[in-house]
Amino acid sequence: MNPADTSRPQLKTRRINLDTGRENVVLISRRSKALRPEVFRGFSRVELRCGPKVLLATLLITDDDTLVGPDDVGLAEPAFRRFSEPVGSFVTVTPAASPRSLDAVRAKIQGHTLSATEISAIVDDLTHYRYSDMEIAAFLISSASFMTSDELLALTHAMAQAGTQLTWDKPIVVDKHCIGGIPGNRTSMIVVPIVAAHGLTIPKTSSRAITSPAGTADTMEMLARVDLGVEQMKEVVRACHGCLVWGGHVNLSPADDILISVERPLSVDTREQMVASIMSKKLAAGSTHLLIDLPVGPAAKLTSAMEAMRLRKLFEFVGDHFGISVEVVTTDGRQPIGRGIGPVLEAQDVMAVLANDPEAPPDLREKSLRLAAHLLEYDPGLRGGTGYARARDLLESGAALKQMQRIMTPREPRSVTPASEF
Amino acid sequence: MNPADTSRPQLKTRRINLDTGRENVVLISRRSKALRPEVFRGFSRVELRCGPKVLLATLLITDDDTLVGPDDVGLAEPAFRRFSEPVGSFVTVTPAASPRSLDAVRAKIQGHTLSATEISAIVDDLTHYRYSDMEIAAFLISSASFMTSDELLALTHAMAQAGTQLTWDKPIVVDKHCIGGIPGNRTSMIVVPIVAAHGLTIPKTSSRAITSPAGTADTMEMLARVDLGVEQMKEVVRACHGCLVWGGHVNLSPADDILISVERPLSVDTREQMVASIMSKKLAAGSTHLLIDLPVGPAAKLTSAMEAMRLRKLFEFVGDHFGISVEVVTTDGRQPIGRGIGPVLEAQDVMAVLANDPEAPPDLREKSLRLAAHLLEYDPGLRGGTGYARARDLLESGAALKQMQRIMTPREPRSVTPASEF
Repeated sequence: MNPADTSRPQLKTRRINLDTGRENVVLISRRSKALRPEVFRGFSRVELRCGPKVLLATLLITDDDTLVGPDDVGLAEPAFRRFSEPVGSFVTVTPAASPRSLDAVRAKIQGHTLSATEISAIVDDLTHYRYSDMEIAAFLISSASFMTSDELLALTHAMAQAGTQLTWDKPIVVDKHCIGGIPGNRTSMIVVPIVAAHGLTIPKTSSRAITSPAGTADTMEMLARVDLGVEQMKEVVRACHGCLVWGGHVNLSPADDILISVERPLSVDTREQMVASIMSKKLAAGSTHLLIDLPVGPAAKLTSAMEAMRLRKLFEFVGDHFGISVEVVTTDGRQPIGRGIGPVLEAQDVMAVLANDPEAPPDLREKSLRLAAHLLEYDPGLRGGTGYARARDLLESGAALKQMQRIMTPREPRSVTPASEF
Repeated sequence: MNPADTSRPQLKTRRINLDTGRENVVLISRRSKALRPEVFRGFSRVELRCGPKVLLATLLITDDDTLVGPDDVGLAEPAFRRFSEPVGSFVTVTPAASPRSLDAVRAKIQGHTLSATEISAIVDDLTHYRYSDMEIAAFLISSASFMTSDELLALTHAMAQAGTQLTWDKPIVVDKHCIGGIPGNRTSMIVVPIVAAHGLTIPKTSSRAITSPAGTADTMEMLARVDLGVEQMKEVVRACHGCLVWGGHVNLSPADDILISVERPLSVDTREQMVASIMSKKLAAGSTHLLIDLPVGPAAKLTSAMEAMRLRKLFEFVGDHFGISVEVVTTDGRQPIGRGIGPVLEAQDVMAVLANDPEAPPDLREKSLRLAAHLLEYDPGLRGGTGYARARDLLESGAALKQMQRIMTPREPRSVTPASEF
């Protein structure tokens, strides 16, 4: 690109070895010709442009020429990867206009109800990293106080549309989801192999830890690769009927990961956001039948049957709207499940159950069997009421363990991008 | 300090030439012995400790040893200044617990009303830079939807208490404040010299631009130093009855500046926050009589007389509670005031009015005279109804210009800390 293309001063990109997490960060010299001190301050938001390509980032300023010279702009690692232009490209740097959809957030703050178009614009800006942390927080908190049913549906739909949308060539695609909050609750790793051994399709993606010491993806990673891409995931499901992968590389409902990155440090978890988050992922994953596990207990996310019922109704409402058959079970969330807490011990508990080890934690085994039984009943070919017996047979015969071993075998070489970079 | 004092790994501090604005930022090597990858991610919050001293900061991670070695922690400039420990100090770095008062913010998000104690804890954490931008946004938006009268009083009080509290040995200390939003509206720079020339005490602090191209502090800076500290400001007021300084170094209601640093990029400006912000500054400034200018117009902050009335009542309510005699005037905010926009041209307009230049903008002159007239009427020695004539006399006789020249003369050498560092 010719630096004379435009009248604005152009800066040459450099790559700065800085891990700034989800946030895009760029570095400019205080002596930069592009820096207008009345506009730019440390931590203000700027816009990088290179042809049609645009990146919003947080600005750091330095006097240290060894970091960036006055004619350069330094891109910290995540910004560099997302911008994906070679080092030495010419870019303009201007103060960032707020993302346009922020007007809708401001309206929401003032008590207005948002249209599906406005919500979809917000999700689009979120997905493209155009919101800063404070802007994400403003959106989350403004919708925490109230969200109409229509807003909830629009948010779920927009989030599902924003990323990968999986389709499976099967009439029944089952899934289970637990709202989390109970340490050691690693039932998915037992339920998936049982259900897959039966022959039902169960393409399970999981998150890393949000509130507890380990998420299913963290625990599964003790046993097998979880950072599969869409094609690899499809291949595993084709071969084994089920999979257990981390959702991060599959890019289902990417706005959700961005919202969670602010919800987590704020410890703000509202009912509507939770339902939109979960249902958008399931909608994008192509699920037709979904079992939701709501643990209730004094230290769980839900502390009363009344709360659980209100949440159940929201799940049913959204499921019905999008044609997903949703079943919600409330379970005992009064204490941790299994013996160990943390990825290593939880993985041992899971494998002990699958191996029918007499020392295996009976609570984890029993809860998994009951959840698997619910899912198996979705099979029209199974005689009503025999789901539990079938699940137990598949576990006790070793079929579930064998299925788990198949699921654990990746068919592709390990990708070169370590998971920690995302 | 002895690195063997504690069992946690200690890191040696380095200073990193990075301007990160209001945000504290520290840098750690990915190979650091203190870094536990399951806990630390780029942009997560960490806590630095050195003896009793604690600093909360945002973490950046690097593999570049020339920035920080594995045994070091790099402090970006603002973090280094606020921590104020020498380079080479030993510190521990641990994941930051959220500030405790964030529980109150979460309660507010869920619709609870906060106690004075909770609000005071929030203001204390804000003032000590313990809130990240997203946490500040969460607090702002959670109180944007509703704030009770008691919460508003508690917030005003806590904010006033959090910084410098000025006292003046005078029965009457007047002040004026415009809620802003009208370009060119530089009446303070004319009102203050008129009122001070009369002999009333008017210690005026101003902000830099929030929404318009220049704030009074920016415009005044074209003519004189505005970055005075408390003692310098007191000296000018003692000598001249009035001053025109930037509030930044005087540290009145410091939490307000922190809230504004998030309100501004979000463009969120709620009635209650505005009243708490202004009244906390006036309370801390020791004002006894306050005139508030509310411009009303289609592009102003207030677009209708009804809105202005609701805001007026809030100001009167808070003023009455804290014993400040508040008078609110609504003014014509349909267009900019004066000829020029921006600090240089606005300063020219102001000086033209003070010098009785026939080319001086008549709207700026007239509005300033009317506001000054209101303030002069607070003098019990002045015959009722003669405020305007007295203001005009002081302007036309050149007394106001002479007073402005005195106010502009700083008595102390320029401080070594440039304003841009704050």
